[in-house]
Amino acid sequence: MSNPNILYFQSGGPTSVINASFLGLAEAYKKANLGGHVYVSRYGVSGLLEGKLQEIDLDNLPDITYQPGSYFGSLRLRLDEDPNGPQAKTIINTLKQYNIGYVFPNGGNDSMDTAMKLCSYIKHAGLDIKVIGIPKTIDNDLYGCDHTPGFGTAAKYVANATIAVALDDLTYKQGRVNIIETMGRDSGFLAASSKLASLKGLGPDYIYVPEVPFDAHAFLEKAKKAYQEKGRCLIVVSEGIRDKDGNLIASSSAYEDEFQHQQVGGVSSYLAALLEKEGIKSRAIELSVLNRASSFLPSLTDINEAKEVAAFALKEALRGITASMVCIKRKEGKDYQVEYTALPIESIANKVVYLPRHYINEEGDNITDEYIEYCAPLIKGNALPLDDNGLV
Amino acid sequence: MSNPNILYFQSGGPTSVINASFLGLAEAYKKANLGGHVYVSRYGVSGLLEGKLQEIDLDNLPDITYQPGSYFGSLRLRLDEDPNGPQAKTIINTLKQYNIGYVFPNGGNDSMDTAMKLCSYIKHAGLDIKVIGIPKTIDNDLYGCDHTPGFGTAAKYVANATIAVALDDLTYKQGRVNIIETMGRDSGFLAASSKLASLKGLGPDYIYVPEVPFDAHAFLEKAKKAYQEKGRCLIVVSEGIRDKDGNLIASSSAYEDEFQHQQVGGVSSYLAALLEKEGIKSRAIELSVLNRASSFLPSLTDINEAKEVAAFALKEALRGITASMVCIKRKEGKDYQVEYTALPIESIANKVVYLPRHYINEEGDNITDEYIEYCAPLIKGNALPLDDNGLV
Repeated sequence: MSNPNILYFQSGGPTSVINASFLGLAEAYKKANLGGHVYVSRYGVSGLLEGKLQEIDLDNLPDITYQPGSYFGSLRLRLDEDPNGPQAKTIINTLKQYNIGYVFPNGGNDSMDTAMKLCSYIKHAGLDIKVIGIPKTIDNDLYGCDHTPGFGTAAKYVANATIAVALDDLTYKQGRVNIIETMGRDSGFLAASSKLASLKGLGPDYIYVPEVPFDAHAFLEKAKKAYQEKGRCLIVVSEGIRDKDGNLIASSSAYEDEFQHQQVGGVSSYLAALLEKEGIKSRAIELSVLNRASSFLPSLTDINEAKEVAAFALKEALRGITASMVCIKRKEGKDYQVEYTALPIESIANKVVYLPRHYINEEGDNITDEYIEYCAPLIKGNALPLDDNGLV
Repeated sequence: MSNPNILYFQSGGPTSVINASFLGLAEAYKKANLGGHVYVSRYGVSGLLEGKLQEIDLDNLPDITYQPGSYFGSLRLRLDEDPNGPQAKTIINTLKQYNIGYVFPNGGNDSMDTAMKLCSYIKHAGLDIKVIGIPKTIDNDLYGCDHTPGFGTAAKYVANATIAVALDDLTYKQGRVNIIETMGRDSGFLAASSKLASLKGLGPDYIYVPEVPFDAHAFLEKAKKAYQEKGRCLIVVSEGIRDKDGNLIASSSAYEDEFQHQQVGGVSSYLAALLEKEGIKSRAIELSVLNRASSFLPSLTDINEAKEVAAFALKEALRGITASMVCIKRKEGKDYQVEYTALPIESIANKVVYLPRHYINEEGDNITDEYIEYCAPLIKGNALPLDDNGLV
């Protein structure tokens, strides 16, 4: 067996459950009683590149099951290819210095590129260190996974925000065109999750995802028609919707021309402004960073799976698997059940999975009921992670 | 005693707890066993003006304790002064037709203007009908009240959103300037409630409220300094902040020039754009309508008080009080306790209460610890109003 010391780090964008994955790994490691140490590289690979890892006291694990953000810090950095380069050398030295036998990068598709580079450095250095990726992303766009840790909680926020906005608007006989903007630059899973509001009879009139070219003219006509016919219209858009030429709607807008450095997002404000110009009362509601940090409304399914994928990663590593990432597979059958598997990282890294076409209706402006069956189990399980002060 | 039939209606903007007030009234009425009926005027006074009220089946009350929005519909309408005018005549006829003895308008300061007009019509018509206002507003700006139903739940969302955004930003060594925009056009109570995040060590660097003239230049300097010194800055602004001449910052901005019909809101986007122009990474997070519809994260204190003010309104009406609104008073002493009282509506209607100066720091750019003592009890008491599907 390799040296039992393990290294964990968080990489890429945060989710509401990435810290639960750390606890899942640490608790499984403690239970395995291997006699080694758990180290963390702070801010992604920064600790590895600085030759400084943080040891974790397994008897005093931080209380971060429901804490949003990446507790140990993260980094977006593409490592060098060169296994003889300075990055590779420093990283290999750090791994040797701390006697690391197993490395667990916790991240999405870009982070699996980092994991792949680590595998290459390790192989080149002739070391016996296993690398197993622990998945996370609110975008649900990792190859080989039925879904990803972080998505369920983010989807739950989208669904509940949609219901809240719909009920708020029903207050007045004459409502508005409400345009809710979810995260999701490339994949439409988060915007699609607003469809779950239809379980309460409050599903959006239109849902627009990046997978379907967005036609602003058709959008305006549909929103105006609904507004005129029933006095209101509820629309959900992904921040990443694009026109037929592949240009982001938000970045091709006057809004962006005005404020040149505007980040992605803002498409709902742009669309609401277009409607307002035509005299239609409308409102943009951008879920923004709360879409990925809504840990005050967790999906217990998501929290539990975030822990289990990490525990499974340890199990796979200990039986000698490397250069793989853990994936969640959904079992066949009526009741929702999952199992875990590990796929080669090279089949996952740098790829993006899109919302399958059969989850989008024929017109490309809403989501099918089939998607509800897919998504509903992922937001189930309620928890109330608030303290006595009512704070998360 | 007057005829025991009672009339309830919802007026003005919705809150997350206004429907709890209806239940508080209906349950107290049922318990009082007066042998009369409960009627609702749908969409504010619309039902009264259309001569059509809806009878409520007390044995089948709707399950709306945690439902946001105004379940019975609302209306923003200023009634005529003239007690001989057509509005007065129709309303008096409807009240007679349904043998109404007591009227309970549930609303904020504008709605208490409606209540005052009803009292005037009733007096002019020589009828014995009692009118008692039930307070509600997320803005917490009703005269005579320690605080108002609806505020606690909205403040709880502000506090938790602030914590979530702060933790999310800590993910990266180099963070952003995050600008959270709360509701509150005139009063700064909601923006001030972000100060509760300091109970978790995550209080905003700066909090800007409408009570203090906003200086964009000073704002930019402070945000830049914090960003340069610690790599991030957390700012909370009220949508209603104004410059020294009393002009809304959002409406005096290029943003509004671009989209002429833009509603209030958008000040955070404007400020973030100013910072981005100077090369400072920043993000606007507008809580928007979710600030008043976040019933998935209720304050039980708020929910219970929303019910109790309504039950107290019935009690006061039955003992012959009229032309009054129920107010929440905080008892003296270390532990948070409230009592209810009724004040003449004319002392409340059309007035706005502002955040007291001693809750704002000397520099006018943050909130004092004294405010935490005031606000903390109002967000306490957690509940999880989600169904088995994880939906509110």
